[in-house]
Amino acid sequence: MPHSAGQPHDPSPAFENGTEWLRGDGPASDVVMSSRVRLARNLAGLPFVHRAGAADRVHVLDLVRAQVLKAGLCEKIMWANLHELGSAERSLLVERHLISKQHAKGKPASHPGSVLAPGPAPAGIPDDPRGVAVGLPGERLSIMVNEEDHLRIQVIRSGLALDEGWAEIDQIDDKIEAGLDYAFSQRFGYLTACPTNVGTGLRMSVMLHLPGLKLTGDIEKAKRAAQDMNLAVRGFYGEGSDAAGDFYQFSNQTTLGKSEKVILQDLQQEIVPQIIEYERVARRTLQSKRATALEDQVYRAYGTLTHARLLTTEEAMQMLSHVRLGVVLGLIKHVEQRLVNQLMLLIQPAHLQRVLSREMDQEQRRVARASLLRAKLAG
Amino acid sequence: MPHSAGQPHDPSPAFENGTEWLRGDGPASDVVMSSRVRLARNLAGLPFVHRAGAADRVHVLDLVRAQVLKAGLCEKIMWANLHELGSAERSLLVERHLISKQHAKGKPASHPGSVLAPGPAPAGIPDDPRGVAVGLPGERLSIMVNEEDHLRIQVIRSGLALDEGWAEIDQIDDKIEAGLDYAFSQRFGYLTACPTNVGTGLRMSVMLHLPGLKLTGDIEKAKRAAQDMNLAVRGFYGEGSDAAGDFYQFSNQTTLGKSEKVILQDLQQEIVPQIIEYERVARRTLQSKRATALEDQVYRAYGTLTHARLLTTEEAMQMLSHVRLGVVLGLIKHVEQRLVNQLMLLIQPAHLQRVLSREMDQEQRRVARASLLRAKLAG
Repeated sequence: MPHSAGQPHDPSPAFENGTEWLRGDGPASDVVMSSRVRLARNLAGLPFVHRAGAADRVHVLDLVRAQVLKAGLCEKIMWANLHELGSAERSLLVERHLISKQHAKGKPASHPGSVLAPGPAPAGIPDDPRGVAVGLPGERLSIMVNEEDHLRIQVIRSGLALDEGWAEIDQIDDKIEAGLDYAFSQRFGYLTACPTNVGTGLRMSVMLHLPGLKLTGDIEKAKRAAQDMNLAVRGFYGEGSDAAGDFYQFSNQTTLGKSEKVILQDLQQEIVPQIIEYERVARRTLQSKRATALEDQVYRAYGTLTHARLLTTEEAMQMLSHVRLGVVLGLIKHVEQRLVNQLMLLIQPAHLQRVLSREMDQEQRRVARASLLRAKLAG
Repeated sequence: MPHSAGQPHDPSPAFENGTEWLRGDGPASDVVMSSRVRLARNLAGLPFVHRAGAADRVHVLDLVRAQVLKAGLCEKIMWANLHELGSAERSLLVERHLISKQHAKGKPASHPGSVLAPGPAPAGIPDDPRGVAVGLPGERLSIMVNEEDHLRIQVIRSGLALDEGWAEIDQIDDKIEAGLDYAFSQRFGYLTACPTNVGTGLRMSVMLHLPGLKLTGDIEKAKRAAQDMNLAVRGFYGEGSDAAGDFYQFSNQTTLGKSEKVILQDLQQEIVPQIIEYERVARRTLQSKRATALEDQVYRAYGTLTHARLLTTEEAMQMLSHVRLGVVLGLIKHVEQRLVNQLMLLIQPAHLQRVLSREMDQEQRRVARASLLRAKLAG
């Protein structure tokens, strides 16, 4: 089947104020930036992605795209073939948490060990056919096609809202399944490329802002406690990324043997509220016992962001983290939390180049980043 | 002879704008904070200070005080008996560069090896009789009595003005000598407690602000070059102090075998102008090749000083150094160099407590220092 998903959709996400995870107004948004629910799904009768040749993957892409566009998942679906996008556009999608770094990078089309489709892609077929569907407005929904699994469906909500996210993704999953045959085993549940996802195929995660625990020095203790409760702790951009700006992603590890409802209840009602409470206690301790040191950190960060002429992403994230804490605690009154959240996205390399409509080397980005922050934060 | 120098003079120097070394308007004041000329002198027929008992030192104090007060050295002389001052007042004098740290601290009145006056001070005589005369207005002149030598006379001038300083101190020296008999040898010249001062008893020094050489990394090279030319390089508060705020004191080492005129000419015409030129070249290099990095340093420093809630003396000095550089280079336009100079004095611990009229522990001083800097520098 020829590749047919190339209609000219605008692959660049809009810079809208409504981007869900930047809104900063969900439940417990003083600590919880966003909640994310994702499902791993595969199509029955087709090889898993890492065993599939290019033609198989194009087939998956076409099937999923057709169903996703007609299923009425949300107001509007933006579709992009990632193998047709330049690296700047793909980086934009990563920075917006719409696709994984792995999905942006892609992988070889054929694998030496593949019995089903050995050798290079046939003429006229892309090397690594893969795509993404993004739900608008708000970019709450995204569906990666041909990442590790045929489908990786994710719903993001502002604040602590795994329950709402679950309700939404459950409906979306049903609508997609109405037109596609999922690989499912009565014994194991949903089948996935990696055994750690088998069963529910569900991963729930929350992005927590923990500057208080960082400043009191209790962050490692909190991470260990979470790990003891079977949570994985990752950075701002997921697996393998650093905890930029004191953001930590906590997610469940178990997908097999526990129902979705139990996973949801554990996280939403028990574990995450506990971590939130640790962070709030840390902030209260700082406010009562080390108020001046706290203010010093917050205002220095603001002073640096409004005066520096060169800023790396890492430093800017760290400073924005302290400013965000200052805003949440009422120390900085004239800056809105949503603006700080937005800046955390806009200072990322690809967004910075997009905002300024030109490619830049690292040094130029540092200048542009500092300049943008001064302009946006100036009192 | 009873101790008679205790008339109630105000031992606290005035906080006047006219303080000479803070004016910031002398020659080459972009680099040279101040020039200092000092003479070491001793009275004939009396033991050197480290060999003198308390009664001898009181005698020296009385002789010098009487002559200094009547010799018409300048508009007004403020006299203080240091052994009668509290440590806060003595620290103020150190911070204003009017007395040495050693002179503030004092020393035991009698020395085990002293043949002239063994044992403790007799009843009614202070343990460590010592004083200082300060010339007003401007505090250009100060005379330490019973420091290492009976007299240490110093004249400070703003900018590079060793010649004016020398002309002034030469006259003052003559006026003092008119009523006192100096220890002098036809063969060696003026006799001093330490052989390194014998001969002219002269030391000339300049306080240079070298942030450019610090930022380009050439400061150590410049220091070595100065040492090769027989200059001693010290910090902001002289011997044993650190180079706070990128200030370095360069002074001549040789007092014997070179006339005052030759020492003066070497420093004022040859060596110091060379170091000044190194610094100016470094600044021009920064401006032409690393303009953004330079601006980044300058504005970050300003941002920190106008936002921090806790500042140590060391950090404040370093930030003020960068702000001073920014003012001199025209990057910061609304702040005057004189204000930056004054702040470098006002943020020192004793001055800070004086300004706020209360004693403070280190943490309180950090708060007060940050608060003062914000108030004074706010645009």
